[in-house]
Amino acid sequence: MNIKKETQRQLSEITPLEQDFSQWYTDVVQNGKLMMYGPAKGTMILLPNAYGIWENIQIELNKIFKTKNVQNVNLPLFIPESLFNREKDHIEGFNPELAAVTHVGDRKLDERLFVRPTSEVLFAELFKNLTQSYKDLPIIFNQWVNVVRWEKTTRPFLRSREFLWQEGHTIHADAKEARNLTKDMIKIYAKFLKDYLAIPTIIGKKTPHEKFAGACTTWTIEAMMKNGHALQAGTSHYLAQNFSKAFDISFKNTNNEDEFAYQTSWGVTTRLIGALIMTHGDNRGIIIPPRIAPIQVDILELFANKDQNVTLTAKKIQTALNKKFRVRVDSSDKNPGFKASNSEIQGVPLRIEIGPRDLANGEVTFVRRDTLEKTQVKLENIKEAVKKALTDIHNNLYEVAENRLKNNIEYVYDYETFKQKIEENKFVIAPFCCSGEAEVQIKAETGASTRCIPLSLDKPLKDAKCIFSECSGNTGRYVVFAKAY
Amino acid sequence: MNIKKETQRQLSEITPLEQDFSQWYTDVVQNGKLMMYGPAKGTMILLPNAYGIWENIQIELNKIFKTKNVQNVNLPLFIPESLFNREKDHIEGFNPELAAVTHVGDRKLDERLFVRPTSEVLFAELFKNLTQSYKDLPIIFNQWVNVVRWEKTTRPFLRSREFLWQEGHTIHADAKEARNLTKDMIKIYAKFLKDYLAIPTIIGKKTPHEKFAGACTTWTIEAMMKNGHALQAGTSHYLAQNFSKAFDISFKNTNNEDEFAYQTSWGVTTRLIGALIMTHGDNRGIIIPPRIAPIQVDILELFANKDQNVTLTAKKIQTALNKKFRVRVDSSDKNPGFKASNSEIQGVPLRIEIGPRDLANGEVTFVRRDTLEKTQVKLENIKEAVKKALTDIHNNLYEVAENRLKNNIEYVYDYETFKQKIEENKFVIAPFCCSGEAEVQIKAETGASTRCIPLSLDKPLKDAKCIFSECSGNTGRYVVFAKAY
Repeated sequence: MNIKKETQRQLSEITPLEQDFSQWYTDVVQNGKLMMYGPAKGTMILLPNAYGIWENIQIELNKIFKTKNVQNVNLPLFIPESLFNREKDHIEGFNPELAAVTHVGDRKLDERLFVRPTSEVLFAELFKNLTQSYKDLPIIFNQWVNVVRWEKTTRPFLRSREFLWQEGHTIHADAKEARNLTKDMIKIYAKFLKDYLAIPTIIGKKTPHEKFAGACTTWTIEAMMKNGHALQAGTSHYLAQNFSKAFDISFKNTNNEDEFAYQTSWGVTTRLIGALIMTHGDNRGIIIPPRIAPIQVDILELFANKDQNVTLTAKKIQTALNKKFRVRVDSSDKNPGFKASNSEIQGVPLRIEIGPRDLANGEVTFVRRDTLEKTQVKLENIKEAVKKALTDIHNNLYEVAENRLKNNIEYVYDYETFKQKIEENKFVIAPFCCSGEAEVQIKAETGASTRCIPLSLDKPLKDAKCIFSECSGNTGRYVVFAKAY
Repeated sequence: MNIKKETQRQLSEITPLEQDFSQWYTDVVQNGKLMMYGPAKGTMILLPNAYGIWENIQIELNKIFKTKNVQNVNLPLFIPESLFNREKDHIEGFNPELAAVTHVGDRKLDERLFVRPTSEVLFAELFKNLTQSYKDLPIIFNQWVNVVRWEKTTRPFLRSREFLWQEGHTIHADAKEARNLTKDMIKIYAKFLKDYLAIPTIIGKKTPHEKFAGACTTWTIEAMMKNGHALQAGTSHYLAQNFSKAFDISFKNTNNEDEFAYQTSWGVTTRLIGALIMTHGDNRGIIIPPRIAPIQVDILELFANKDQNVTLTAKKIQTALNKKFRVRVDSSDKNPGFKASNSEIQGVPLRIEIGPRDLANGEVTFVRRDTLEKTQVKLENIKEAVKKALTDIHNNLYEVAENRLKNNIEYVYDYETFKQKIEENKFVIAPFCCSGEAEVQIKAETGASTRCIPLSLDKPLKDAKCIFSECSGNTGRYVVFAKAY
């Protein structure tokens, strides 16, 4: 835990993002009371300000999942090696990252147990036991758990050796139904990011080279960070019959014939916290979108020692807001500037400053975290004003992010311009042959990877030549490229 | 996964509990759509009907925790061996059960990583980094996570190699404050079990022999199962300065002197699901207390093919109840008897049967899962009647359990009577010297272990001789003994 002691930290120790984006991110994360490093290298501790975001994501996504008949379950952490090895692409993709339990106490286990990096094989075994007839299907399960992938380089929220996620797993009697659900889910994620995290995304399919190990199709949502880099924010996989064949999951179909079942899986992770930091954060720190903020409103008592009305009013406002909003009161004896910075650096979307001078006029001051705009609000209007302010903040955050995304996408038809635009940290949309080898070479040459084959394009599709210099074929596909996390 | 396929299962395959309690438990668990075994031996899958209970426990406990200023966090799964070894009692207590990750892919790690069996050492490291002055304290954290303890023999919910729990960890500048919190928390658990799980418990301290490895004092709540065996349902530990000394967690106190901090930890686990099965279940299966039931009301359409009004009414009732209660509709074409059994075996506390005959009178039939009592309810009274029925069910479940507990506690003053009462599966309260050796010997001779030194006794305390045959001293302490899970 190489972080400075809480009380030693100074507020506003944040490197400007224009100067060094990477350092800015580190500073924002460390100052925002979001996380600390765990004692095992590459692991992290989610502090209340970050875990609270994740809890709200869970609550809101669970509500949405419920309308889709998703049932939550909990499967074990450990996967016996022999079970994991059954689906070949899957084990090949994950093997280098698998943490293996070999011993208990001083005793060696007969078989190594992998700590789940994802749970397709566990759900496959479960589904095998639950699926006999088409009447048993579909089964739509989800779990909120921790997973472990031994990444070589790690970054808070973006890439850590253990992270939290939800993983949905479904099984169907019908391929079309499964394919539709895969696509529905990625749309649900896109809408969720828009409505709750104020993050616009591009929906698309991964190229064969970038798809999930074991999937037939991988859908993704790609977000643009403030430095122009892409972040994969959620995925939904159509597994077809890959796992059902490897695990022998068959059912009697309506013709009473045995048929292998069709599966999907889909998930979002604590990466979303990294995504919202790099989408909305500024040089004062994180800005947490109101609908998932652990604290939505900070009430700051200013000069309470000079006017006991300040403390009384703070209590009153807290009580009035408590039922509808997540509220915190700072009644410490710190100075107003410190209190304001402290609220800002933790990303609380709205703060209400209560001081003697305003109170004399029957008013308080609202300060928006996104625009830093100050407004005087009459005491009797506070509840309505909070509601409106939080909505405005959400909408503004989204609009700013959406404009950034729109203004930084370039359609490109030749490799020289491609390289230049990637150098400028743009999202580039270009005709591409989707060959895996070409992807590897482009990445080596430019640092850009394919993000997705977008579901829809703003511009009409021209039948153009593949962007890659060594490829001369025409291609019907346009692909989004970008540097990425 | 040695369980029969869902569709092969017959309802009512439950061994009577009077005949074979252990088999009854297994049958109830397997038929109640609660769990299946995971592929790694000793692990389990929580199906929606069990995981839903755990989710509701989380929701309700989180509400209570919030009033106590508990902040939720998330700490890593892995504990480096060197860190775990720092507190000697702690490592000695847990060592034989520790699962160790030694490899990633084919690479051997420099240091073994233990999968957390509990997180005292991780929180100690975290607190060390957050604690400098008495002004930083108290810190009151909690996490909802999975833990791993390699038990030799396992039973669904009661003892599995991985289980879910919440673990609270706090740090204080004042010993008394910490001790009070330890005791408050065990009372909160006892009240929670009473109010939400309808389970009465005995609050008490563990003897030195039975306390948590690394604790100064362990408080426990002990529940009585239907077979008279005890189940430890929650614990709260006062850790004193044991961990703060081992991990060098000091703070400047109000005299500006360095002082080691005071800690507590406390938790409840998915064991509670086992507890409620064995407290309330009957020969038809599990009975889930209404306040944490995943489905509170089953609406059964009977003979819907003969009267379309049945389906319409079911929909209407569902809509009317949906906002306040967790409701499910069975509109399948199965016969009424099957539907009723299916609802009963899954423990849904209340079912509403809607059939053409009742509807002709403007009525439906309520059937309580606990008493199996049937009542005709007028359509216009349904909402109020559901509310009342669920409250009545909760109260009845609690009352029955409380009477069982009261009627099966015996005060005993000699070892012969002691052995006889333990043989009869009673809870025995007896004067005891609290020697660890005596406990071991009593357990070997009778199968009973000390459950707790109760916080309060129904009878006035006599200064009697220790119950143990080889001990002749008088003792001020009365201790609860029982056979236990």
